[in-house]
Amino acid sequence: MFFELYWQYFLSGLLLWVVVKIALSIKNRRNLVATKDVYIEYDSEEIPALPLDLKHIPLDFSKLSTEESLKNSEEFYKLLNQRRTVRHFSTQPVPKEIIYNLIKTAGTAPSGAHTEPWTYVVVSNPHMKQKIREIIEEEEEINYKKRMGKVWITDLKPLKTNWVKEYLTDAPFLILVFKQIYSFKEDGTKKIHYYNEQSVAMASGILLAAIQNAGLVSLTSTPLNCGPALRSLLERPNSEKLTLLLPVGYPADDCLVPDLHRKCLEDIMICFL
Amino acid sequence: MFFELYWQYFLSGLLLWVVVKIALSIKNRRNLVATKDVYIEYDSEEIPALPLDLKHIPLDFSKLSTEESLKNSEEFYKLLNQRRTVRHFSTQPVPKEIIYNLIKTAGTAPSGAHTEPWTYVVVSNPHMKQKIREIIEEEEEINYKKRMGKVWITDLKPLKTNWVKEYLTDAPFLILVFKQIYSFKEDGTKKIHYYNEQSVAMASGILLAAIQNAGLVSLTSTPLNCGPALRSLLERPNSEKLTLLLPVGYPADDCLVPDLHRKCLEDIMICFL
Repeated sequence: MFFELYWQYFLSGLLLWVVVKIALSIKNRRNLVATKDVYIEYDSEEIPALPLDLKHIPLDFSKLSTEESLKNSEEFYKLLNQRRTVRHFSTQPVPKEIIYNLIKTAGTAPSGAHTEPWTYVVVSNPHMKQKIREIIEEEEEINYKKRMGKVWITDLKPLKTNWVKEYLTDAPFLILVFKQIYSFKEDGTKKIHYYNEQSVAMASGILLAAIQNAGLVSLTSTPLNCGPALRSLLERPNSEKLTLLLPVGYPADDCLVPDLHRKCLEDIMICFL
Repeated sequence: MFFELYWQYFLSGLLLWVVVKIALSIKNRRNLVATKDVYIEYDSEEIPALPLDLKHIPLDFSKLSTEESLKNSEEFYKLLNQRRTVRHFSTQPVPKEIIYNLIKTAGTAPSGAHTEPWTYVVVSNPHMKQKIREIIEEEEEINYKKRMGKVWITDLKPLKTNWVKEYLTDAPFLILVFKQIYSFKEDGTKKIHYYNEQSVAMASGILLAAIQNAGLVSLTSTPLNCGPALRSLLERPNSEKLTLLLPVGYPADDCLVPDLHRKCLEDIMICFL
């Protein structure tokens, strides 16, 4: 008798839990739709923060001739087509003023509702680089030995990579790119940064172009499972997530790169002319 | 008696459903971790597709002097800092060769495991531009009238935007950037493109830099809810998703831009020197 009663209480409780769970999932789905389907255009400026009397000013624009445009577009392609991901860095120093110009250039990127949701952590301090290397190598050793599986390890052999990352202490600078998931408005409420992932990645593309243009090399790495430890080391808030780690500097004298090729224009472009 | 029995059947069924649901959610979470935590480095080359005897060749690198590097980094910053998102386009034509160079430049971006997961659809055909405009304006009218809510509409007033998008037919070229979520291996099995979102956004950043460098302007737009209709119109496969639509051309003579400013270096950079 007692058991039967308990059984029914248990089932009633379970029923209640299920109902609450379903209600919550419906609510979450609505929120998700509201978040994803937000109307936005890049650089469309922080809408709630804009003053009603926001000035509109004439665009400062100097037109190039068609010949100049064509020449510029060809030269820029040639320059960027020389870019290669580099894994072997020289320890030769780079003036920090160049790095600052690179970060300023990345900061010109458009962003969802002009939130500019990026933080660039620039590290040249040898002690700090060593700590970053230790965190990453420790995780990478586990990645290689446990997480990646036999097939992957075999497949990586032609690349001769492993969990030892000399470039993290060799390169004169490390740029750690954090995306800001949200920030806080003046009244203390959360301000969601829509499209922060895409905005920060676009800014990183501009950063890569700037690195190449300055005659430096980099490696576009995404350290696996190291985000929280690095965020903690670099004292970044919970609202920020590590998206990229770029060592920046000169290639080692004996630097090798895999003999890879890029898709041709016909393979990446479809035209309706 | 009958009712009591049904009640217990119902509860037993419910219990079973809950157990299955929990089991599935655990399984999904595991899959999610497996997908997110994949070890990858950008440009780290298509690992399963790499031959075991992949050649490693010396990097082709010409070193600039420190002065040249510094000068280049300053000039590139000045050039990109002039970039503004433009909403008013001139109908003045642009030679298609320039657009091709821009796309080729975007194609030099690094990508997760060198998958190059991007398709650029270039549209200058007036009939096609008109169709694209119709699809977007139809959705945008619903966005403005129903989806965006009163606060948003009020907040948009200073920007003087609405659902009418003249730039879609005024600009000589539209570049629609599609990310390839997956492709197919030679044996017909699915090849997942890890980090496709981030890779395509980085390539888009490089594309924006190339557009600015060629003396053209653009608008980094993400048409809300229009992806499937545009994918269908442009005959792109299910494996591709629209991420950006960039009108490209010259600004209208009377082009105005909102008087906005960018964060300064100190607000976006943290240093450990």
